[in-house]
Amino acid sequence: MKIIRSPQSMAAWSERLRREGLTIGFVPTMGALHDGHRALIRAARLQCDALVVSIFVNPTQFGPTEDLAKYPRPIAADRTLCREEGVDVCFEPTADTMYPEGFQTMVTVPEIAQRWEGVARPHHFAGVATVVTKLFGIVRPHLALFGQKDYQQAMAVKRLVTDLNLGVTIDVRPTIREQDGLAMSSRNRYLSPENRQAATILYQALQAGRRAIQAGRRHASMVERIMRQTVEQEPAALIEYFALCDPASLAPLTHITGRVLLLGAIKIGTVRLLDNVVVPASHQVRRAAK
Amino acid sequence: MKIIRSPQSMAAWSERLRREGLTIGFVPTMGALHDGHRALIRAARLQCDALVVSIFVNPTQFGPTEDLAKYPRPIAADRTLCREEGVDVCFEPTADTMYPEGFQTMVTVPEIAQRWEGVARPHHFAGVATVVTKLFGIVRPHLALFGQKDYQQAMAVKRLVTDLNLGVTIDVRPTIREQDGLAMSSRNRYLSPENRQAATILYQALQAGRRAIQAGRRHASMVERIMRQTVEQEPAALIEYFALCDPASLAPLTHITGRVLLLGAIKIGTVRLLDNVVVPASHQVRRAAK
Repeated sequence: MKIIRSPQSMAAWSERLRREGLTIGFVPTMGALHDGHRALIRAARLQCDALVVSIFVNPTQFGPTEDLAKYPRPIAADRTLCREEGVDVCFEPTADTMYPEGFQTMVTVPEIAQRWEGVARPHHFAGVATVVTKLFGIVRPHLALFGQKDYQQAMAVKRLVTDLNLGVTIDVRPTIREQDGLAMSSRNRYLSPENRQAATILYQALQAGRRAIQAGRRHASMVERIMRQTVEQEPAALIEYFALCDPASLAPLTHITGRVLLLGAIKIGTVRLLDNVVVPASHQVRRAAK
Repeated sequence: MKIIRSPQSMAAWSERLRREGLTIGFVPTMGALHDGHRALIRAARLQCDALVVSIFVNPTQFGPTEDLAKYPRPIAADRTLCREEGVDVCFEPTADTMYPEGFQTMVTVPEIAQRWEGVARPHHFAGVATVVTKLFGIVRPHLALFGQKDYQQAMAVKRLVTDLNLGVTIDVRPTIREQDGLAMSSRNRYLSPENRQAATILYQALQAGRRAIQAGRRHASMVERIMRQTVEQEPAALIEYFALCDPASLAPLTHITGRVLLLGAIKIGTVRLLDNVVVPASHQVRRAAK
């Protein structure tokens, strides 16, 4: 496995492979790799000739009070995982080469960024959209993979790739979970043992919401209340938001008439946790007309 | 010469050529081609294997009160010029395919856009930056050419290409002028014969500024006054701004100590005209220290 730090060298490597007619798969990460990343890497490995994983804790997607400084950076373990999974290049740029003096260009997805995580984290999606555009410019992948856990992020990336004609196929893969349902996330390692236990409440709430829809509930406010009530049983958890949305536009729904996305964010101690489930229309009971 | 209207077909054409190891030159235009464009096309032709010219009157870079609807669209003459100059592909997308329903992503260059033309035209540079990023995504050129006449636009493009790692070399070519010095521009055809005559005052003012610097003037305010006084001799002309700036950052200068960019914008009737000259340090008289 090659470790490449310079964007120029990375771009040259990709250009050479593309000229040979090879396809490039790409998994952009902030490191602290877990089985969710591993699933993305394996899916990419199956679909492409060559495989690039980037490890870059992107400062521009963190807010001023967020966890940039203490974000985990276990680079040796990350490289080991990449080697195990047959990654060809581990791309590890530095903040200085990604954002040199004079840097100013921003990519924004204003409609997506105005909702949910965008409200909680005002500059987050501009940071994500900009760094992903940069990484796609450098790596020039045919295919890039993202996890469904960060649903809104995956939507933002799909949107900017379409809007800016970047010619990258985006593959969004199912969330990988711990045995007890907690969605895998690099931030889970911040949780104390008791809080780790409490954290399962988020997925339990989403499951309660899903069951309510499957049982025939059609009012979003009712399903939202069921999810909130589930979390309220866990004293360590603070609700940030629960929402029922259109899975394509992320617009909130008042009535459930088809596929629906259940989004949730809670805080346990200082750790923010996100999760979501999509309930397909086919899983929903249709009540007979009166 | 191929005429391609669909972004997908354009991208496929470029991808095929790149795979063959050929280099692609690109001149993005809004049509109404003149000898300034012709000079860009000829320069591209000399440097690349294949040559693409785009003709797209980009709606997002026009303000609500600007001349989008009446912008000249002499497509037959434009294609003839492209054929004469050995263009391989004339890429003519529609606004519907460039900005389909749901489009929202914007590319911004906030520091460049806060000055000069960006003040006069608040959303102009975001429109330019976004469409250029899209066109580069579709055409995937190795080299793209821009005219110095739109100096700030060329700076914005250079900046975004660097910042977003787009891997396109930007070649900024000297302004092509009419016999009497007027910078060629598609908007010159809006000028009545009398106003066409009056329009030469802009370049005369920049020349007066240049001569003042070459004669030893070092106070920017003095040079600016000389340029303004020149334009004030022409009753048909209204000054929008004159500025002496750092050619790299576009920041205004108070003292001239090296290379300097003289920027000017005037209005004649309803027509806004832009022009600029760069005065190299080597052309400036160095006064002996007292």
